[in-house]
Amino acid sequence: MVSTRQRILTATTELFRRNGYHATSVKQVVTAAEAPFGSLYHSFPGGKEELAEAVIETSGRTYGELFALVYDAASDPPSAITDFFDGAAAVLEETDYLDICPIGTVALEVASTNERLRQATDRVFADWTDLAAQRLTAAGIGRRKARELATTLVAALQGAFMLSRAAHSPEPVRTTGRVMRGLVEEALRDVRSRAGSGSRRRPPPRR
Amino acid sequence: MVSTRQRILTATTELFRRNGYHATSVKQVVTAAEAPFGSLYHSFPGGKEELAEAVIETSGRTYGELFALVYDAASDPPSAITDFFDGAAAVLEETDYLDICPIGTVALEVASTNERLRQATDRVFADWTDLAAQRLTAAGIGRRKARELATTLVAALQGAFMLSRAAHSPEPVRTTGRVMRGLVEEALRDVRSRAGSGSRRRPPPRR
Repeated sequence: MVSTRQRILTATTELFRRNGYHATSVKQVVTAAEAPFGSLYHSFPGGKEELAEAVIETSGRTYGELFALVYDAASDPPSAITDFFDGAAAVLEETDYLDICPIGTVALEVASTNERLRQATDRVFADWTDLAAQRLTAAGIGRRKARELATTLVAALQGAFMLSRAAHSPEPVRTTGRVMRGLVEEALRDVRSRAGSGSRRRPPPRR
Repeated sequence: MVSTRQRILTATTELFRRNGYHATSVKQVVTAAEAPFGSLYHSFPGGKEELAEAVIETSGRTYGELFALVYDAASDPPSAITDFFDGAAAVLEETDYLDICPIGTVALEVASTNERLRQATDRVFADWTDLAAQRLTAAGIGRRKARELATTLVAALQGAFMLSRAAHSPEPVRTTGRVMRGLVEEALRDVRSRAGSGSRRRPPPRR
């Protein structure tokens, strides 16, 4: 059975996906969760702020796990990138451009006004960047280059969501995904050409 | 002398940079603009929504003009990209990570809830994409490739703002700018190698 806490979390995530942080009220949350008012403060004594932090952390973990799943199921790293972007574009289209994950919107809303939530969004972006950088390093790309690419992947994905939601079109996410794929292909070509030219850099380890 | 309408526009832009759309009230606007309540509805009969549309259009034009200025002052297209991203990173640092331009935040806040404002943000992103695509085409990059790169540049810039504001660090914007510069360099190398190999594609015209 789904706990009241979980129902509240799910309802808040859905409301954030449509309205963001500021336009979501505690009253809307308890109504959508079909939970008594008191249960929200029982599960989240810090009220809306604590609830928002839990949504950011939960969504951050979920999307990190989804990225890892898609990445590890793909035939190679470049395909993993387009699989992930194209999958996100399809979800956006199917859900009439609701926010695919509410973290980006909340991050911008709170960046200058709520230090606790700003730090929560920063931790999620840092975790995603680490995750992508680890995968790219495992594919043989040097550590520094892998981190640069990982930062760019996370930024480009979030920005492409913004453009696709504004345009009500999957094209910005698909297009950005193709360009990101090209970046990863290029980095892997560099690895192979250095390995082939007999530099001291080791060839990419097999995972 | 600055008109009341202009004072209201400027005050709203500043409030949106800090708080976004939903957390900015008409009362805050008239207080910050030192304008009587009635003057807001005199200048913007549609109230907060019409005012927000004017902020989106004005900021969109301003940042488009800024991009064109920075681009045309740079020694070459790749330098133009890092000049623009590094300039934005410096402004973010100097202003304690206030939103450098309020359009991204408002775009995410309204994407699923306000059709008029969603369309206004979409027009701005489309204009910026056109502007960047025109410049890249003028540098000799094929039309389709130039549009792909332009979409990615706008997405990556907006996403990098999000990451830098969340991290209170200029690094995501700087890093993403370096990677975007690499993309443009790569596209220009492709143009030159095709021109050198005697294809029918014309070499990049001088601007």
